[in-house]
Amino acid sequence: MSTITKKDFVDRISEKTGQKRGEVKETIQLFLDEMIDELTNGNRLEFRDFGVFEVRERAARIAQNPKTLEQVQVPARKAVRFKIGRLMRERIVGESLTQELASR
Amino acid sequence: MSTITKKDFVDRISEKTGQKRGEVKETIQLFLDEMIDELTNGNRLEFRDFGVFEVRERAARIAQNPKTLEQVQVPARKAVRFKIGRLMRERIVGESLTQELASR
Repeated sequence: MSTITKKDFVDRISEKTGQKRGEVKETIQLFLDEMIDELTNGNRLEFRDFGVFEVRERAARIAQNPKTLEQVQVPARKAVRFKIGRLMRERIVGESLTQELASR
Repeated sequence: MSTITKKDFVDRISEKTGQKRGEVKETIQLFLDEMIDELTNGNRLEFRDFGVFEVRERAARIAQNPKTLEQVQVPARKAVRFKIGRLMRERIVGESLTQELASR
């Protein structure tokens, strides 16, 4: 298992398309930055095949400190949720199901 | 709340950078496609400030059909996890905490 970074994708896309590395880098960086902006504004991002990002509100709750047993109020807070898209699901989740069935 | 799509980002990035719309579209599409490929291969994607995508194995478990009370074996399956990055967390989660404190 490897970790792939922005730089790896920029190099690869520049090679595949023949576009200048600097331009590809600028596009990818803006894309990621604009996604953060839109989520910050409460908008939902939907990329067909890839998936959906959205900000959800987690309700306030009472939690207990396991050491002191003290109860604390945890305020409502926002969280970002990624929901996997159709193609990604077929390729990643679907594949593991197929392997599972094949190994029976 | 609006839904923002790939097309919206392509238009916006093309306007901001002066790059040709077709080239921006090609880069964004390849970026999303390559992310799916890398996750399918079991690799981890790490984008500073934005977040990390990784494939995790969910363990096999026994589930119960709530209507028939029949127990069924749910096989292990893969799931994609998105872990929010530092900047996105500060801007989205941090903001909601600040609002929470300000409203007390």
